Amino acid sequence: MSPKITVELLRQLRQAMRNTKYIAEPIQAYIVPSGDAHQSENLAPCDCRREFICGFNGSAGTAIVTEKHAAMWTDGRYFLQASQQMDNNWTLMKMGLKETLSQEDWLISVLPENSKVGVDPWIIAADQWKNMSKALASAGHSLVAVQDNLIDAIWMDRPTRPSTQLLTLGLGFTGLTWQDKMTALRSKMAERKISWFVATALDEIAWLFNLRGSDIEYDPVFFAYAIVGMNTIRLFVDIKRLAVPTVREHLQLDTPSKAELSVQTAPYESVFTELQAVCASLGPKEKVWISDKASCALTQVIPKAHRSLIPYTPLCLAKAVKNATEIQGMKMAHIKDAVALCELFAWLEKEIPKGTVTEISAADKAEELRSQQKDFVGLSFPSISSVGPNGAIIHYKPLPETNRTLSLNEIYLLDSGAQYIDGTTDVTRTMHFGSPSAYEKETFTYVLKGHIAVSAAIFPNGTKGHLLDSFARQALWESGLDYLHGTGHGVGCFLNVHEGPCGISYKTFADEPLEAGMIVSDEPGYYEDGLFGIRIENVVLVVPAKPKYNYRNKGSLTFEPLTLVPIQAKMVNTDLLTQKERDWVNEYHRQCRETIGAELERQGRKEALDWLIRETQPIA
Amino acid sequence: MSPKITVELLRQLRQAMRNTKYIAEPIQAYIVPSGDAHQSENLAPCDCRREFICGFNGSAGTAIVTEKHAAMWTDGRYFLQASQQMDNNWTLMKMGLKETLSQEDWLISVLPENSKVGVDPWIIAADQWKNMSKALASAGHSLVAVQDNLIDAIWMDRPTRPSTQLLTLGLGFTGLTWQDKMTALRSKMAERKISWFVATALDEIAWLFNLRGSDIEYDPVFFAYAIVGMNTIRLFVDIKRLAVPTVREHLQLDTPSKAELSVQTAPYESVFTELQAVCASLGPKEKVWISDKASCALTQVIPKAHRSLIPYTPLCLAKAVKNATEIQGMKMAHIKDAVALCELFAWLEKEIPKGTVTEISAADKAEELRSQQKDFVGLSFPSISSVGPNGAIIHYKPLPETNRTLSLNEIYLLDSGAQYIDGTTDVTRTMHFGSPSAYEKETFTYVLKGHIAVSAAIFPNGTKGHLLDSFARQALWESGLDYLHGTGHGVGCFLNVHEGPCGISYKTFADEPLEAGMIVSDEPGYYEDGLFGIRIENVVLVVPAKPKYNYRNKGSLTFEPLTLVPIQAKMVNTDLLTQKERDWVNEYHRQCRETIGAELERQGRKEALDWLIRETQPIA
Repeated sequence: MSPKITVELLRQLRQAMRNTKYIAEPIQAYIVPSGDAHQSENLAPCDCRREFICGFNGSAGTAIVTEKHAAMWTDGRYFLQASQQMDNNWTLMKMGLKETLSQEDWLISVLPENSKVGVDPWIIAADQWKNMSKALASAGHSLVAVQDNLIDAIWMDRPTRPSTQLLTLGLGFTGLTWQDKMTALRSKMAERKISWFVATALDEIAWLFNLRGSDIEYDPVFFAYAIVGMNTIRLFVDIKRLAVPTVREHLQLDTPSKAELSVQTAPYESVFTELQAVCASLGPKEKVWISDKASCALTQVIPKAHRSLIPYTPLCLAKAVKNATEIQGMKMAHIKDAVALCELFAWLEKEIPKGTVTEISAADKAEELRSQQKDFVGLSFPSISSVGPNGAIIHYKPLPETNRTLSLNEIYLLDSGAQYIDGTTDVTRTMHFGSPSAYEKETFTYVLKGHIAVSAAIFPNGTKGHLLDSFARQALWESGLDYLHGTGHGVGCFLNVHEGPCGISYKTFADEPLEAGMIVSDEPGYYEDGLFGIRIENVVLVVPAKPKYNYRNKGSLTFEPLTLVPIQAKMVNTDLLTQKERDWVNEYHRQCRETIGAELERQGRKEALDWLIRETQPIA
Repeated sequence: MSPKITVELLRQLRQAMRNTKYIAEPIQAYIVPSGDAHQSENLAPCDCRREFICGFNGSAGTAIVTEKHAAMWTDGRYFLQASQQMDNNWTLMKMGLKETLSQEDWLISVLPENSKVGVDPWIIAADQWKNMSKALASAGHSLVAVQDNLIDAIWMDRPTRPSTQLLTLGLGFTGLTWQDKMTALRSKMAERKISWFVATALDEIAWLFNLRGSDIEYDPVFFAYAIVGMNTIRLFVDIKRLAVPTVREHLQLDTPSKAELSVQTAPYESVFTELQAVCASLGPKEKVWISDKASCALTQVIPKAHRSLIPYTPLCLAKAVKNATEIQGMKMAHIKDAVALCELFAWLEKEIPKGTVTEISAADKAEELRSQQKDFVGLSFPSISSVGPNGAIIHYKPLPETNRTLSLNEIYLLDSGAQYIDGTTDVTRTMHFGSPSAYEKETFTYVLKGHIAVSAAIFPNGTKGHLLDSFARQALWESGLDYLHGTGHGVGCFLNVHEGPCGISYKTFADEPLEAGMIVSDEPGYYEDGLFGIRIENVVLVVPAKPKYNYRNKGSLTFEPLTLVPIQAKMVNTDLLTQKERDWVNEYHRQCRETIGAELERQGRKEALDWLIRETQPIA
C-alpha cells in the first residue's frame, strides 16, 4: 500500500481557503469530516472527500488543513492503515491515546490569533458544530460555514451523486405498509406535541417508505430527505427516480388517496428551501423534531424556539424492533447465508491443501456462493477474509499486496455478510484447516465462552446492552486477555448492517434498552498482533425468556441465534468449558444441522450437507 | 410513623415568597433541594431544610412549593417512607417511574405564565441551576436566586451551624503530610495550567489538611472552604476552632514556614468575598478550578472565561486511591470491626431465643461492642437493623413504632459500620437463627454467587466499575430476579462511608476507572417485599492480579476483602455453588478465622472466638 501524494492537492486547497470566490474572507483552517449530508457510515464515492484529500479510506476519520499543517484524526482500528495511506504532509492523530490533542485543542495550539476555521455545514452534525464553535470561540477564533465545499472545488474528476433504481418492498417483506408506518410516526408526534418531523438518515427514510436503493455500496439506501407533518408528507429525491410505474404506484403518486397520506415529491436539493418555508409558517408553540446527528445546515434552518433535537428519532426506534414479518425474513436470509457458508467451508477444506486459495479468492468464492441464493442483492460489507497475522487487523480487507494464501498452518478468519431482499446477514467464523496449537485453542475457547455467555444470558426487560458487554469478556479477563472493540451492534432488516440505537459495548453512549424483536450481533474476539485473530459472531434476536421467577412482573429477555453456521469444534479445548457451555454448543449445532441440513438437502448440496453433519457432531 | 403537619408552615413559606423583605418581586414557586452548601450527602441539623418543610427525612429528595401546590421528588428507596412522613398537602413525585414528571416539566405544567421560580443559590449546584434555568426559560419562566433562604426565614428554632473540635491526624494515620498533599495538588494544577483551585466538598478539605471534625453525624468532617493558589493557601473556617494549640501547630499557623505553605485563615462566611477578590486579580489567561457540583453561588463568582469546571477534583481522585498507611489503617479498622460483629452474633445466638432482642437493641449492642474497640469514634451511618419484612426496605432504620423482635423464624439483616481513627467500615450480614426456608436459602445463594463474582473478578487496569455490575446480578437474572440498587460505592478512610469517584453500578455516571488502592463495597442483595431482605456486603480493596497472560502489558486487577466476618453457611444451598465458588467461601472463611481469630484471642473474647471457629468450618 503506497501513500497518496498530496502536495499538489494541499496547495490547491490552501489556495481555495484564500479564494474570495468561495469565502468572503480567507480562512486559516478547513475541516474535512468523513460523513455525508446524512451522517452515513458508508459513503458514496462523491462523498469520500476526506479520502480524496489525505488518502486514508477507513470508515472513521477527520482531516484538518491549516496554512502550514495537515492532520488527520482516527481511532485505534485504523492507526496502521492510515499511516500507510497518508504521505508525510500529514500528521496522524491517534485518538484514544492520552498524548493526542483533540481537534479543538490542536487547532488552538497551531492557529494564529483570531483565526477563522471553515467547514461545510452540510457534513458536520449540529452538535459537533456547537462543540467546535464553542471551543474555538473560547480561544478567540471562530468557526465559519463555507457553503461551497472546498474539496469539491479542487476535485476535478469528482463522481456524480448516484441515483440508482428504487426497489419497492411489499407487505410480505415489510409487515407494515408505509402508510401504517406514517400513522405510527404521527401518533408519536402527537404524543409529544410535535408538528413536523425531518428525516435525514437514509436508512430511516428507506424503512419509512418501504423503498430501497443502491446509492451507497453495501447499504440498500438512496439519497433523500423527508419532511412529515400531521397532514403533509414531502419526499425529497432525484425526481427522475420517480418515473418508474412501480414506484409511482407504491407511493400512490398518481392515484387519489387521503390527503394526509398523499406524498408530495420535490428535488433532493430543495429540502433546504422547503424546510425554510415550513418553518416560516410555524405557529408560536409548534415544534419540529430533527435528529441531533442531522447536519448543521439543516438543523439551523429550524429556529431554536421551534427546534426539538432528539438522540433517536421515532423511526430509528421503530425500525430497531423488528415485526413478525421482518423476523421471518431475517431467519430466511440467515438460512440461505448458512447454506452458502457451509458450501464455502466444505470447498475450502478440499481446496486449501492445493495451496491455491487466497484471502481474496476465498472471499470471492463466498460471494459467488451467496449470490446463488434466492433474492441475493449484494454484500452487506466488505468481507474480512484474513489469514494468520492479517486476522489480528480487526477491520482488515484483503488487497493484492497483502493477500495471503490459506494453509493448513494458519488460522483463517472470515467476517462476511450479505443483503437479501428478506434480510441482512453478518457472520464471523474462525477456522483452522490443519492442527491448531494449544494456545490457539485456549484463546478460541475463551472467546467461545464469552460468545455463549452473551447468547445464553437471561436479563430483565429494559436492560441496556452495555450491561452485557462484560459477560463476553469474563473468561478472557480471567486469563489476563481482552479485545479492544465492542461486542455487538444493531443489524437492519435488508438495511444497514450497522444500525442504532441498541448494541452491546463497554461504551455506554448510543444505547437504548434491549427489547424483544431487536436484532444485534454477538461477536467477541481475541487478537494476537502479528500472529492470528479470533472472532465468533452470530446475529441474535432478542426474545422473551421464562426463568423460574418473575421479579416485579418485569419479565426477562434472552437471545436466539439467527446465524446457524457450525462453530469449529476442532478449535475448542472442551476441558475449559462447563457442562452448561458444552450443552449450549451441542444444542446450537443440533439446530444448525436440523435447519440448515434441511435446506441443503432441499437445494441438493450434498457435499456441504456431509460437511455440516460432520461439523455438528456433539462434543463430549 | 405519623406525617408532619405542614399546613401552617406552607402558609408561612408562601407568605415569605411574596415578602419584599426577601425578594424584590414575588416568586410563584420555591425550590428546596436536599443539600447543604457543600453538596454533602448527610446534613447537619441546621441544613435539613427539605425535611423541615415537608417532614420527609430520607437522604435524597427535592421539595417544590408553588402558590397552590407542594410536591416532593424522591427515588424508589424512599417511596414508602416519604408517603408515611408527608401529610396530604404534599404530592409524592416518584422518580424513575415513566409517568412521573421531572421537576422542570411539573413546574411548567402548574405555573401561570411568566412565573418566577426561586432557589437559594448556595444549595443548588451550578449544573442543576443551569439545566433548571434553561428549561424554565424555554417555557417563558425564570429561575431567580433568592439570597436569604426562605426556609430559614420561617424556621423559628433552627439549630445553629455546628463547630465541633478539630482532630489533627499525624503521618501514622495519613501517610502523607498536608504539605505533601498541597504540593501534589499544585503539580496537578501546574500540569493543567490552573492558577487557583476552590475546594468545596467537606471530605476533600478534611483529607487535604489531615484534619477531622464531627459537624455532621457519621461523617468526620467540618464546615470549611479552601482556596489554593500556587503560592497561597486560604482556609475558611469558624475562627474559634483554630484557637486549639494542636491545630495551630498542625497547620503551622504560628511558626514561620515557606511562604507557599503558610495557611491564611479566614471566617467560613468570607469565602464569597475572598473568592471575588481572587477573581478580580486574575490575569487574562488564568483559570480557576472548581467542581461542577459546587454551589451555584460560589461558581458564579468566577467569571466564565476563567472558570474551569471539573467533574472530579484532583483531591477527589487522590483521596480515592489509598496509600500504604491508609490501607494498613483500613485493615486494622476492619479487624476491630469484625471482632465486634463476631461478639454480636455470638451474643445474638444466645439471646434471641429469650425473645428480648429487638432491631433497636441489636443495633445498640453492635454499637456498644464497636465502641469497646481502640480508636472508635462513632458509627459511619445509621445501622440498618431489620427483621423479616423490614429487611425488604432497603434503607430501613428501626424506629420504636416499626421495631421488630429478632426470632428464630425470620431473617435478620444488619448493615452497619463505624468510624475509627484508622479507618471506616461498612458491612452487611444476613442471618437466620432458626431454619431458613428453601426459598430463602436459594435467593441467599444467588446473592452470594453475585458477591463472589464481583469479589473474585479479574479485569484489566482501567476498567470502570459499572462494567462489573452485571457480574453481581448474573445468578439472580438467570432465575428472573434482580435488585434495584447499585452494587458498590467508594469508601473513605476515616472519612465518608460513601465517596466518589468510583463505584460499581448499572448507572454509568460518576464512575472513574478502578485502580489499585481504591476501596469500594461489594453488596448485591435480594428483596422480597413484605417478607425478607438479603444483602451480603464486604468492603474490598482493589489490588493488582497476576493472571496467566498480560494482554498489551495492561496489567490486571482484582479485589481483596477487607471485611472479615463469616458469611452464614446455614443460609447457603451449596448445590447451587460451583467448585470455584465453594473454594472462594472456604478460603474467605480461612482468612476470617486466621486474622480475626488471632485478634479475638489477643482480646480474650472466648465466646466470640468459639462462634468464629464454628462459623468458619469449610463447606462441602
